[in-house]
Amino acid sequence: MAKNDPIELNQHTITRDPLPASKKVYIEGTIHKNIRVPMREIELTNKDKVTVYDTSGPYTDPDAEINVRTGLPELRREWVVGRGDVEEYEGREIKPIDNGYTDGDKAFATHNPELQRKPLRAKSGQNVTQMHYARKGIITPEMEYIAIRENQRRQEWLEAETSEEREKRLKGNSFGANTPDEITPEFVRKEVAEGRAIIPANINHTELEPMIIGRNFLVKINANIGNSAVTSSIEEEVEKLVWGIRWGGDTVMDLSTGKNIHATRDYILRNSPVPIGTVPIYQALEKVNGVAEDLTWEVFRDTLIEQAEQGVDYFTIHAGVLLRYVPLTADRVTGIVSRGGSIMAKWCIAHHEESFLYTHFEEICEIMKAYDVSFSLGDGLRPGSLADANDEAQFSELETLGELTKIAWEHDVQVMIEGPGHVPMHMIKENMEKQLEVCDEAPFYTLGPLTTDIAPGYDHITSGIGAAMIGWYGCAMLCYVTPKEHLGLPNRDDVKTGIITYKLAAHAADVAKGHPGARYRDDELSKARFEFRWEDQFNLGLDPDTAREYHDETLPKDSAKVAHFCSMCGPKFCSMRISQDVRDYAAEKKRIEAGMQEKSEEFKKQGGEIYVELTD
Amino acid sequence: MAKNDPIELNQHTITRDPLPASKKVYIEGTIHKNIRVPMREIELTNKDKVTVYDTSGPYTDPDAEINVRTGLPELRREWVVGRGDVEEYEGREIKPIDNGYTDGDKAFATHNPELQRKPLRAKSGQNVTQMHYARKGIITPEMEYIAIRENQRRQEWLEAETSEEREKRLKGNSFGANTPDEITPEFVRKEVAEGRAIIPANINHTELEPMIIGRNFLVKINANIGNSAVTSSIEEEVEKLVWGIRWGGDTVMDLSTGKNIHATRDYILRNSPVPIGTVPIYQALEKVNGVAEDLTWEVFRDTLIEQAEQGVDYFTIHAGVLLRYVPLTADRVTGIVSRGGSIMAKWCIAHHEESFLYTHFEEICEIMKAYDVSFSLGDGLRPGSLADANDEAQFSELETLGELTKIAWEHDVQVMIEGPGHVPMHMIKENMEKQLEVCDEAPFYTLGPLTTDIAPGYDHITSGIGAAMIGWYGCAMLCYVTPKEHLGLPNRDDVKTGIITYKLAAHAADVAKGHPGARYRDDELSKARFEFRWEDQFNLGLDPDTAREYHDETLPKDSAKVAHFCSMCGPKFCSMRISQDVRDYAAEKKRIEAGMQEKSEEFKKQGGEIYVELTD
Repeated sequence: MAKNDPIELNQHTITRDPLPASKKVYIEGTIHKNIRVPMREIELTNKDKVTVYDTSGPYTDPDAEINVRTGLPELRREWVVGRGDVEEYEGREIKPIDNGYTDGDKAFATHNPELQRKPLRAKSGQNVTQMHYARKGIITPEMEYIAIRENQRRQEWLEAETSEEREKRLKGNSFGANTPDEITPEFVRKEVAEGRAIIPANINHTELEPMIIGRNFLVKINANIGNSAVTSSIEEEVEKLVWGIRWGGDTVMDLSTGKNIHATRDYILRNSPVPIGTVPIYQALEKVNGVAEDLTWEVFRDTLIEQAEQGVDYFTIHAGVLLRYVPLTADRVTGIVSRGGSIMAKWCIAHHEESFLYTHFEEICEIMKAYDVSFSLGDGLRPGSLADANDEAQFSELETLGELTKIAWEHDVQVMIEGPGHVPMHMIKENMEKQLEVCDEAPFYTLGPLTTDIAPGYDHITSGIGAAMIGWYGCAMLCYVTPKEHLGLPNRDDVKTGIITYKLAAHAADVAKGHPGARYRDDELSKARFEFRWEDQFNLGLDPDTAREYHDETLPKDSAKVAHFCSMCGPKFCSMRISQDVRDYAAEKKRIEAGMQEKSEEFKKQGGEIYVELTD
Repeated sequence: MAKNDPIELNQHTITRDPLPASKKVYIEGTIHKNIRVPMREIELTNKDKVTVYDTSGPYTDPDAEINVRTGLPELRREWVVGRGDVEEYEGREIKPIDNGYTDGDKAFATHNPELQRKPLRAKSGQNVTQMHYARKGIITPEMEYIAIRENQRRQEWLEAETSEEREKRLKGNSFGANTPDEITPEFVRKEVAEGRAIIPANINHTELEPMIIGRNFLVKINANIGNSAVTSSIEEEVEKLVWGIRWGGDTVMDLSTGKNIHATRDYILRNSPVPIGTVPIYQALEKVNGVAEDLTWEVFRDTLIEQAEQGVDYFTIHAGVLLRYVPLTADRVTGIVSRGGSIMAKWCIAHHEESFLYTHFEEICEIMKAYDVSFSLGDGLRPGSLADANDEAQFSELETLGELTKIAWEHDVQVMIEGPGHVPMHMIKENMEKQLEVCDEAPFYTLGPLTTDIAPGYDHITSGIGAAMIGWYGCAMLCYVTPKEHLGLPNRDDVKTGIITYKLAAHAADVAKGHPGARYRDDELSKARFEFRWEDQFNLGLDPDTAREYHDETLPKDSAKVAHFCSMCGPKFCSMRISQDVRDYAAEKKRIEAGMQEKSEEFKKQGGEIYVELTD
């Protein structure tokens, strides 16, 4: 096997600065002493500190030494190996076709020996999924890590809260979701055991900072990256990953197709602190030269093992696209728009046979549980236009996904369910309700949905509307959409725009659900806004750089950032300033009234009741 | 009075190109032969034509000769004067202070004599509001114009629709709104008569292309422009207007403050085919040097007359900010954030007197009905943060607005009600329900609402989510928010981004309500997408330029625009192409089955029933 030197990645392309006014802090575990959960602490100009959830990994820690050619430190290795149920083994041989070549030299031009690890798998007869541990009553380090992470140190300010503040904050409509004030490791365990949440954490992804997906936790977002047949390079993909998690991507899907996908995935996994998802059928299709009919269970199985050994945390598998559902899409306006779905549909009709993903589903479960890869059961028949939303094809497939969920759970394999797509607002809730019902509350993971079809170039927004709504109704993770959706491949700016849009949609959902930790940040930012703490307003926002840049476009002087007015109204005409005066007045009035009240109480005590009533 | 020459406006800054593949078409009236309703007809590459609502006015008609120094043709003059109830009169003298000066020369540096018209007003004892005519059973040219406009020629394709298509399209949840398949002039009249819709159409805004705001019509959007004390010029404001209506602004609010606001308003009104709204208290405040306490009813009244004579179509008046409500805001996180609201609050507490807007409300109605200016009753106490949403201050004011609505209606003055603001998703519906209840279904007009406070730089999106939802629940007009909200003044790109965002939110609302004319455009675009008609996909979208630009970034070659694949997947791997194959297969399968069915029917006729059942 001819393997060339690894390519030289330009270190300068990897973004390493901490976010403005932000510092990485680590919270240690109590059950498991060897865990250190990273959070971002924002220091305000008034010296207050606000802790926020941090997906950015060691990249934003200036103390972390990072070399993308060798990968991140393997913080989970000790936990995984420590459980005593895994073994190292030789693993599958990497073949030229894994990178899309028949010629060895070209195939390994991008191969990096420094990123290779001997794979781990479950010892014979063992099951290494988080669900399996959870059901045995074991609280893993991953579970405690997640409990600490989800709390965001909110115990500190929850204690300081008055009962009145608390009642107001907790108002929300969660549609049956139930997030406790404090997330305990035991709560995490229970949610995983009951299938309501998943911890995507392949035992071979030892660089992972564990996170959880479930409707009783913070709503998560996924960002897609991937070298396409048409453009982009490995360096770009790694930086896209780092860039994506910097702005809040909770998981990243590597949707690479074409050449060098195995080598690209090495770089992505070894450098990723967030779970990585893939759609294995894409690579399997590459291995049969893009001819869907030539796909076989063997090629697919080989691809699952290949990717499981690399450490992929969840697989999108379109096992619900059944032969009999395919004709249900014939009269649709936009047929089948899922890539995986259309590949499987084509295979089914070409062979006039049931999908091998469905017929081999239990064997897939066997692989999943040996590495703890989670299912993301794909919605291959999702609607690609408003006209096709909630139709028979879509909902028939969903029922099959519910059936497969139960099978996976018999193997203690973790499952989430993918959802649409394009759905008008009034039809979104039905999706969520049906999913909860037929999939027994397995977490839902939707793409948008897009609420109109008429805004190419703005589909991050048209889908952000649907995403916020379905998140509110109970969707656990939202797959981002960029402004380039339907038009082209997202660049760096598009990725950021898509992520921030989805981050705000997820947060809007958390707030509406009444998540106990959600509105704290809104309130901190609003206070900063009201008090003209411009720097704090920028830094508490999801994108401090853009906020600052927009502000400086109109009022670039530094003095403007402490000014008690802003560019919208000018110095004489500021509603925020006037209302500060109003507040002072009302406080004064209250004080006077309280004084009068006090006096009258005093008077009452002295027996002057009739007089007092008259003056009240 | 020294008036200098008008400033030379650079004609080249005014955008005049028609939108891609689009042509202006005019539909004539039947009751009123002298009306010509403009629409935009998009020609597709397959020669189909799609008609869409067009707010852009004559600017996108290459045959229209336009000179912004003299203003647009006065198409409504004949209608207004023809009713015989108005008179021309000398009008109020324009004073230096109207432009914010005490010195005459400077004050008139931007004054343009060519834009001056002798004002019209109702003859003594007459009432010239559309509501007044509607209640007398009169269908005005404005009403017929609107009926034609709202239909968008949908009768043509409604007739071609199958009952199955129709049933599917009409699914929607309108929460009690009720839009008929065909909007008749009589329907428009009835809605206006009953106060459920308004036609903002000052008799002095003769350049207007009439439009309607009400929940049984298409959801409308408003864009704000305005020279601020800090930046911008008159030329910029006129081009901002033209730019704003090009992308879909249904009305425009001129929120100018500082110098030259009278002269700026001349330019805006005389060049605007859409209704113009203002907040007269802003100008009144300028006239008293920005000192809220110095405001008087007389200054305010003078400003109303000044702006009514110029032709402003609706006035935001914060008459619901009562003295007793002011202390209710004292414990808020963000106090009073409405500029108008805070000015009035300050006035009330300084004088310890009830607001002159409230005490003089009937006199204001007298002015409104002499020019047909519509009320936009301002929500001066709207929440400026999630923490303050739906509080006592906000809802108390809303009840007062309901009370004022009834008074205005006694004068046959048209009314809409302004709404918030910052509201988490789960509290939006309550706003709409309460407004419908306490304001007797007068149209609601909201700013957003913003569903989180943590995304400065992205508040068009965080508010677009709330806007789509409240539009669905029944809000009639959505006031746009740009990416610069809370940070700075929007530039040209920001205005466009804000408008497209709100246009898609309004459309998402129309679709969800089941508006009979809404989903047609989505379906046409989806068909174009499925059939790889790239040009049609761009041209049917809300922003063809951006869609094309995004596409060309990845695949710039012209050949790519007819290619049967796109940049996301590349040529071998296209789900849309595969699903076309699936469709062909299913159709073939159906054909075979139909053939078999036919044969079996034949067989049945021949008496072979038992055999047939077995093969079915």
